[in-house]
Amino acid sequence: MYRVDLNSDLGEGYGLYRIGNDNEIIAHVSSANIGCGFHGGDPVVMEETVAQCKMRSVAIGAHPGFPDIMGFGRRNMDISPKEAKAYVKYQLGALTAFASSCGMRIQHLKPHGALYNMAAVDMKLATAVAEAVYEVDPQIILLGLANSCMITAAKECKLVSANEVFADRAYTADGTLVPRSAPGAVIHDTEACVKRVVRMVKENKVQAITGEDIELKADSICVHGDTPEAVEFVQEIRKALQSEGAQICDLRSVLGV
Amino acid sequence: MYRVDLNSDLGEGYGLYRIGNDNEIIAHVSSANIGCGFHGGDPVVMEETVAQCKMRSVAIGAHPGFPDIMGFGRRNMDISPKEAKAYVKYQLGALTAFASSCGMRIQHLKPHGALYNMAAVDMKLATAVAEAVYEVDPQIILLGLANSCMITAAKECKLVSANEVFADRAYTADGTLVPRSAPGAVIHDTEACVKRVVRMVKENKVQAITGEDIELKADSICVHGDTPEAVEFVQEIRKALQSEGAQICDLRSVLGV
Amino acid sequence: MYRVDLNSDLGEGYGLYRIGNDNEIIAHVSSANIGCGFHGGDPVVMEETVAQCKMRSVAIGAHPGFPDIMGFGRRNMDISPKEAKAYVKYQLGALTAFASSCGMRIQHLKPHGALYNMAAVDMKLATAVAEAVYEVDPQIILLGLANSCMITAAKECKLVSANEVFADRAYTADGTLVPRSAPGAVIHDTEACVKRVVRMVKENKVQAITGEDIELKADSICVHGDTPEAVEFVQEIRKALQSEGAQICDLRSVLGV
Amino acid sequence: MYRVDLNSDLGEGYGLYRIGNDNEIIAHVSSANIGCGFHGGDPVVMEETVAQCKMRSVAIGAHPGFPDIMGFGRRNMDISPKEAKAYVKYQLGALTAFASSCGMRIQHLKPHGALYNMAAVDMKLATAVAEAVYEVDPQIILLGLANSCMITAAKECKLVSANEVFADRAYTADGTLVPRSAPGAVIHDTEACVKRVVRMVKENKVQAITGEDIELKADSICVHGDTPEAVEFVQEIRKALQSEGAQICDLRSVLGV
Repeated sequence: MYRVDLNSDLGEGYGLYRIGNDNEIIAHVSSANIGCGFHGGDPVVMEETVAQCKMRSVAIGAHPGFPDIMGFGRRNMDISPKEAKAYVKYQLGALTAFASSCGMRIQHLKPHGALYNMAAVDMKLATAVAEAVYEVDPQIILLGLANSCMITAAKECKLVSANEVFADRAYTADGTLVPRSAPGAVIHDTEACVKRVVRMVKENKVQAITGEDIELKADSICVHGDTPEAVEFVQEIRKALQSEGAQICDLRSVLGV
Repeated sequence: MYRVDLNSDLGEGYGLYRIGNDNEIIAHVSSANIGCGFHGGDPVVMEETVAQCKMRSVAIGAHPGFPDIMGFGRRNMDISPKEAKAYVKYQLGALTAFASSCGMRIQHLKPHGALYNMAAVDMKLATAVAEAVYEVDPQIILLGLANSCMITAAKECKLVSANEVFADRAYTADGTLVPRSAPGAVIHDTEACVKRVVRMVKENKVQAITGEDIELKADSICVHGDTPEAVEFVQEIRKALQSEGAQICDLRSVLGV
Repeated sequence: MYRVDLNSDLGEGYGLYRIGNDNEIIAHVSSANIGCGFHGGDPVVMEETVAQCKMRSVAIGAHPGFPDIMGFGRRNMDISPKEAKAYVKYQLGALTAFASSCGMRIQHLKPHGALYNMAAVDMKLATAVAEAVYEVDPQIILLGLANSCMITAAKECKLVSANEVFADRAYTADGTLVPRSAPGAVIHDTEACVKRVVRMVKENKVQAITGEDIELKADSICVHGDTPEAVEFVQEIRKALQSEGAQICDLRSVLGV
Repeated sequence: MYRVDLNSDLGEGYGLYRIGNDNEIIAHVSSANIGCGFHGGDPVVMEETVAQCKMRSVAIGAHPGFPDIMGFGRRNMDISPKEAKAYVKYQLGALTAFASSCGMRIQHLKPHGALYNMAAVDMKLATAVAEAVYEVDPQIILLGLANSCMITAAKECKLVSANEVFADRAYTADGTLVPRSAPGAVIHDTEACVKRVVRMVKENKVQAITGEDIELKADSICVHGDTPEAVEFVQEIRKALQSEGAQICDLRSVLGV
């Protein structure tokens, strides 16, 4: 029996502003990464999103970002590990209050945007994130890019980690993502994407852009709901996984923790 | 044996900005109200302030405010009860993360500035604040203006409340503060202030501005540390209370909860 | 020959967030109120919106609001006249930089949301807004609610003012808007709205909710583009005005300044 | 006759927060770099600082920074040239409103903190800053690190530039600053600093850290007022310059524009 989690970013609106298509995508995922106010997600949005996840039995995770509403947390910021640690704790704590309020627990934490990308390759930053989570609640799972510094950092501080993979992205021979700027970084053929995902889940393998097979553990697949095509794509992936005997369930069930 | 708590606002700096005189006043209080990021107090400041309180054995409380750094949370904002509730939960949760990180628990929550003043007289807002606290953690004490809506709201939702009094402020016959704009609102004679405080603690009584004695329970006295005179004033109050046999201790000990 | 201006709020997005339907509504208005960063409208959005207005020959105005992105500037804030004055100058100046950059001039300033509503009834706040505009550039027109404090304040400080009217709102006998909370405040019959607008423009009269005719100068009509219905409504108004011989042109042409 | 400008950062408080020692240092400088709200300096502070500069006959300049109050604009942010250009225009425009209000003109613009440091070495960012200034008002002088990309970028877009030097910093053989992390980067001997400054002004030369003399045009010297020692240091520099026959005057007089 194969198990895999589908995660998506939810609750990233701010005040009157809305972004993404939460109502649509929530029906298709097992885990939600919820904005925590620094890049998106004001307290009212957070409270409503947690309630929605509870109703839909979707596991919830904190999705902390850089303090940059104007850039939606997508711009690299040169913050110190100490600052990163405090920012992650703050945002994780804020979401925890909404979870406690309705009797839920935080399942995981996945850094957002530029914080995710930077922590994937910067061991000091990754360690700051992992330590923040561990010190607040060592039961929380750190969801990070498969084979990245985040996974290493989580292990080093005894935190449970989960490997995130991408259906439509090419991988290098050392198991990291081919940068978006490089040719072939994004795979546009839906059928090819779906096949890759199924293989990652069933065989823990994927073909690198250079041709050879590499090992890649797929605990969770990142999916988006911002366009009708994106939602269709998620449905394709679900269908393919299920017809191959894979069960879509939340991260705790996937990892058996 | 009389018991009373001394509380002060701490940790309200932001980035490079500092305000108040935390290092000085912390030696004289039993409870700290810690800024939670909306009016002051960034995550790094919060983390450091919690650590300082732990070292000094000062009980910690959340000090949530309006989302208004530019106005230091001192300007009335017409937010809905739903927004107030979510903002209080968010800020309380954020502080809780730092408390958990170093093995402390949040003792109380005291609204800041304009939120405090508005919630003292607006039952809907007070209820939003009290419910927010109760839903996140019903063990937390709501510290509010003695005889105000906040105390009533806390009782109505089964939350433990603590009455805060002011040494240098005049009271009306119905037990509320004489507004600052009215003549005689602030008492400038230190000796008189100290005597009033001692009487509030020992007899639960104070003379109203109109001459008659009124009942006023004093669980906690609000003190400031922003000027050398303010610190001296706190020391006078401590000395007087102790020489009258009153014990200065945190809110849980005062209330016996 | 009757002349009237049609104005709409544009450029109120922020970072990745978008709000309103700028591309649609811009084709139907003669003046744009552009967000200036405090409630919506970041610098990049402002720059692009000014460029779009230039291309479409739409006159531009500053649309300053309270410093409250989380509330989209729609929540009353108790700021001092001194603060209001400085906030209006700041935002007006910011927009002016983008106007200068592409050889345009600021035609008018219209306060946004809660600042608009508060300044309509608070003479001190209205005066702060009018003085801010006058001190920065006395050529700029203050666009405010017809018959409100804003119009009075503009006159008192020798600033040119323009009366804004609403097609779908009922008026009281003293020429102010019936509050939204009162029955009959909003007129839902499109045909009735259009007739009222035409009469306001041609006769400077409108029937009050209490039955009698009142004087109401209509220099500019506020229109919205946030729904397909709203855009259709604007088109109806334009058509009716033009078939009645009214010319839709910018505020300077309407006022002859 | 030698002429040189002394510049300092002023008006970087925010709401109730104050930073620096504006009242002290303003007496000793000929040009002020005024915070514009993104890293520090709210509208009220800006208005007051411009008024103070007018009273003291100190020339004013915009001091735009990254949108990062929490980091005081001192953390590198990976913003696009388009964003940088819009942010600089916005902040410059905002300050211009306060200048116009009291009949002053903006003399110069000097980027703040991390924006200054990044634009000194990144030609694309420097060009974005220079173009922003030029498009808003080509009369404004760009004040940047001597020999840096900012000076080059200003020249390329026909903007007048001014070279800023530091009294207490060591220079490399190619005329740029020795990074703070390197040994010998900061010169602690006051007398040595003063001598270096005088030579930079009179001979346009300074000894590089590697021993040889290099050319370095000194149009403006950056001074700080945040400590009593800093203010004394400024006074030493002034005294030395004046006794050597150098005149301290604003940038326009130094550059003869």
